[in-house]
Amino acid sequence: MNRHGRFISLEGGEGAGKSTLLAGLHDYLAARGVTLLQVREPGGTALGEAIRAIVLDPAHPDISAESELLLMFAARAQLVRERILPALEAGQWVLCDRYVDASYAYQGGGRGQPVERIAELERWACAGLKPDLTLLLDLPVATGRARAAGRGAADRIETEADAFFERVRHVYRQRAEAEPARFRVIDAGQTPEYVLRDALAATAHLFESAA
Amino acid sequence: MNRHGRFISLEGGEGAGKSTLLAGLHDYLAARGVTLLQVREPGGTALGEAIRAIVLDPAHPDISAESELLLMFAARAQLVRERILPALEAGQWVLCDRYVDASYAYQGGGRGQPVERIAELERWACAGLKPDLTLLLDLPVATGRARAAGRGAADRIETEADAFFERVRHVYRQRAEAEPARFRVIDAGQTPEYVLRDALAATAHLFESAA
Ligand SMILES: Nc1ncnc2c1ncn2[C@@H]1O[C@H](COP(=O)(O)OP(=O)(O)O)[C@@H](O)[C@H]1O
Ligand SMILES: Nc1ncnc2c1ncn2[C@@H]1O[C@H](COP(=O)(O)OP(=O)(O)O)[C@@H](O)[C@H]1O
Ligand SMILES: [Mg+2]
Ligand SMILES: [Mg+2]
Repeated sequence: MNRHGRFISLEGGEGAGKSTLLAGLHDYLAARGVTLLQVREPGGTALGEAIRAIVLDPAHPDISAESELLLMFAARAQLVRERILPALEAGQWVLCDRYVDASYAYQGGGRGQPVERIAELERWACAGLKPDLTLLLDLPVATGRARAAGRGAADRIETEADAFFERVRHVYRQRAEAEPARFRVIDAGQTPEYVLRDALAATAHLFESAA
Repeated sequence: MNRHGRFISLEGGEGAGKSTLLAGLHDYLAARGVTLLQVREPGGTALGEAIRAIVLDPAHPDISAESELLLMFAARAQLVRERILPALEAGQWVLCDRYVDASYAYQGGGRGQPVERIAELERWACAGLKPDLTLLLDLPVATGRARAAGRGAADRIETEADAFFERVRHVYRQRAEAEPARFRVIDAGQTPEYVLRDALAATAHLFESAA
C-alpha cells in the first residue's frame, strides 16, 4: 500500500469507458468520506498539460516513437512528484486516468518501443510508485472506437489503425495476467452500472486494509 | 565520420559565444562550398521548438530534474531523426548549437541526474549519433553571465545560481578531457576573431578526411 492513501489507475483502449467509470467511482468514494485526487495522463500538472497539448496534437504527425515515449514519461515524472505522492502522503486516495501501464501498451505494444526501455524509465521516472489497484477496462477494439467516435475530432493517437489498438489491447491483457494481484480486468462491454459494480467490488480490499 | 557529412557540436555555458561563433563558422564553411544545416538545442524541429518553449519558460519554475532530462532527450531524439541524420546522409555538414554533452553538463552536473541514466538515454534516443567534432567554449562563469546579461530577460535555466553553472563548466571540462579526440577546448575569453581562428583550426582535419 502507498503510505496512507490508495492509488488506483484506470486503463483501457479508447472509448472503453474510463472517464465514465472515474466519475462513478469518484462519487461513490466521496460519499464514503474518502478525500480524493483525480488526475489524467498525460497531464495533471501545468507541465503535463503543456506536454499533453503537444503529444495529442494532430499537427505533429511525425513525432518519433522515442520522443513520444520520453514525453509521456516527462509528464508522468512531474505528475508523480508534484501531485500523486503528496496526495498519498496526506492520506488521500488518487484516481488516475491512465498511468505507466499505458506506456507499455501504447508506446511499447502500439509503437514497438522495447519493454526493457520502458521498464528502465519506470524505475527512475516514477520514483518507484506502483498503483495499489489497476482497473483494466477490456473491450473489443471496434466497440471502443465506435463509442469514441461520438466524441468529436480524433487526436493524434486516436487516428492510428485498428492493428495498433489490437496490439495495445494485447499488451494490457498480458500485463494483467502477469500481475494478477494488482490488476482487475473488467468486461467493459457491460452497461456502465455493471462496470461500476465490478470496479467497486475490486476496491473493497483497499478499504479493509486501510489504516 | 558520419556518413558523408560532418557533424560539429558547439558547447559551453551561457554567454560563452556559441551563437557568435556559429555565425562565423557558417560564413566560412559556406564560402568554402560546404552545404550546411545549422540547428539549435533544444529545438530545430516543430516538436523541439514546442518543447523548448516549455522547458525554458520561467512560468514552469518547478519542473522536476527527471522531467527536464526527459524533455531534452525528447527534443533531441526528434532532431536527430528528422533533421541531422538526413542532412548527414545527403552529404551536408551539420552545425549544432548544443548537443548531448549539454545534458551531461546541465541535467547531470547542474541538476544532479546520474551519469549512467544520461548515458542510457544517449544510447537509444540519439540513434548512436556522435559529433565528429565538439567545440567547447570555455569561460569563467562570471564572464559568461556578464556577457549574457545584455541579452534581455533570463530564461528558466539562466536564472540558476553561480554554483549551478560552475558544476556545468566542470562537467564540460571533464568530458573534454575524457574524449580528447572528439573535443577541442577553446579559450572563449579571447576576441571573437581569435575564437573563430581556433575553431577553424580544429575543423581542418574534417576537410582532410573528407571523401
Ligand atoms: N459501459 C458502457 N456502455 C456503453 N457506452 C459507454 C459505456 N461506458 C462509456 N460509454 C460511452 O462511450 C463513450 C466513451 O466513454 P469514455 O468514458 O469517454 O471512454 P474512455 O475515457 O475510456 O475513452 C462515451 O460516449 C460514453 O458515454
Ligand atoms: N569572444 C567574445 N568576446 C566578447 N564578447 C563576446 C564574445 N563572443 C560573444 N560575445 C558577446 O557575448 C554575448 C553572448 O554571446 P553569444 O554568442 O550569444 O553566447 P552563447 O550563444 O554562448 O550564449 C553576446 O552579446 C556576444 O556579442
Ligand atoms: Mg477518457
Ligand atoms: Mg546562443
